[in-house]
Amino acid sequence: MAKLVLIRHGQSEWNALNLFNGWVDTKLSETGIDQAKKAGAALLKEGYQFDKAYTSVLTRAITTLHLALEEAGQLWIPEEKAWQLNERHYGALQGLNKADAAAKYGDEQVLQWRRSYDTLPPLLEHSVESVEVNGKSYPAIDRRYHDVPEEQIPLGENLKVTLERVLPYWESNISKDLKNGKNVIIAAHGNSLRALVKHIEDISDDDILGVEIANGQPWVYDLDSDLKIIDKKILEA
Amino acid sequence: MAKLVLIRHGQSEWNALNLFNGWVDTKLSETGIDQAKKAGAALLKEGYQFDKAYTSVLTRAITTLHLALEEAGQLWIPEEKAWQLNERHYGALQGLNKADAAAKYGDEQVLQWRRSYDTLPPLLEHSVESVEVNGKSYPAIDRRYHDVPEEQIPLGENLKVTLERVLPYWESNISKDLKNGKNVIIAAHGNSLRALVKHIEDISDDDILGVEIANGQPWVYDLDSDLKIIDKKILEA
Repeated sequence: MAKLVLIRHGQSEWNALNLFNGWVDTKLSETGIDQAKKAGAALLKEGYQFDKAYTSVLTRAITTLHLALEEAGQLWIPEEKAWQLNERHYGALQGLNKADAAAKYGDEQVLQWRRSYDTLPPLLEHSVESVEVNGKSYPAIDRRYHDVPEEQIPLGENLKVTLERVLPYWESNISKDLKNGKNVIIAAHGNSLRALVKHIEDISDDDILGVEIANGQPWVYDLDSDLKIIDKKILEA
Repeated sequence: MAKLVLIRHGQSEWNALNLFNGWVDTKLSETGIDQAKKAGAALLKEGYQFDKAYTSVLTRAITTLHLALEEAGQLWIPEEKAWQLNERHYGALQGLNKADAAAKYGDEQVLQWRRSYDTLPPLLEHSVESVEVNGKSYPAIDRRYHDVPEEQIPLGENLKVTLERVLPYWESNISKDLKNGKNVIIAAHGNSLRALVKHIEDISDDDILGVEIANGQPWVYDLDSDLKIIDKKILEA
């Protein structure tokens, strides 16, 4: 048996500003830092012992992992970062205020972009190095992706497309550790984790849209060696 | 050509208390956190772009790496942790106040333990899971070492023995990256870094004892593909 813990990053600076975040690299807000530490305290209280950590290449997820692991006294475990665990790429919406987007495109359109399984957001015409918000520049597609084949760099994703890049990485890396009985912690994002949950729990395309993973709230699965769920719980963080 | 940056961790809780630290896992003090961030700001100012990070399995070095990389906007680079980069194991002195040790064993003896290349400290009789200081328990040899063959777990080390475990790891991992032109950052400890500096700069057994690496001060080497030094500088952090 192996334990799998999923943690969505704590609140980011852009979550706090109600901006579409996606692949733009933003930091945790003070609230987000607090959420990450509380998640770690909850893991410590349960006495979980991890063998391996996975996270995305986005700072808000990486920092969440580190704060939680330090709180749990396990900052020393091996860690692997993967762009495949990144948040859904929000295309031309990245950096837009959600209210502004609703005013521009209409509430219903924005709701569909946010909540539909397979509607793509307005796509970027080409990758951008950074996104400007309030006169500050935030990294977007920079040298951290230089080993990723250009055709795999998204210009905008829905949950379906997100899942199609999360799952191969799950299969080739994370699931192997779990099948070997290793306890794994993944700190990632609302939609990359939703993709994983859809797969692990075998949830339909429609039903997954109702699944919300709160910032910093650990989802805990006990899995057998075929990765069937023995037990699941969501910790109060 | 490749760039190699060495950073000794910021001040730890036990540095601040003047205790022998060694393999006991302690956190950074507030001063240490500040030193790590300043180191990162100095790296950012120089515009260094790293491809790979190495650190020990001790929290004070890992946290230093993370704080410095976040400050430099490069928290996303791949990271590898290795027990071989740990601080020198201080044997039975771990957890002792340096002044108390001097009162107990004499100034000269303690100076020899601290400064001699090949004098071993008083050895532990067996590995200990944790060390108690002021009623608080700190991890020492715990499950993070469970993949290390028991005969390789030290009961006390001098700089010579430290070097003998640092160098094979350098040869098998770090030096390969550098020879491939990758820019590498290593966050580690006074004596594991001293061992590396001794090797890289070809310093004698006597002269290495006069080399002091300050907490949080980046040492920067430009190396050719044979790892000969083209340039070296120490950054003001």
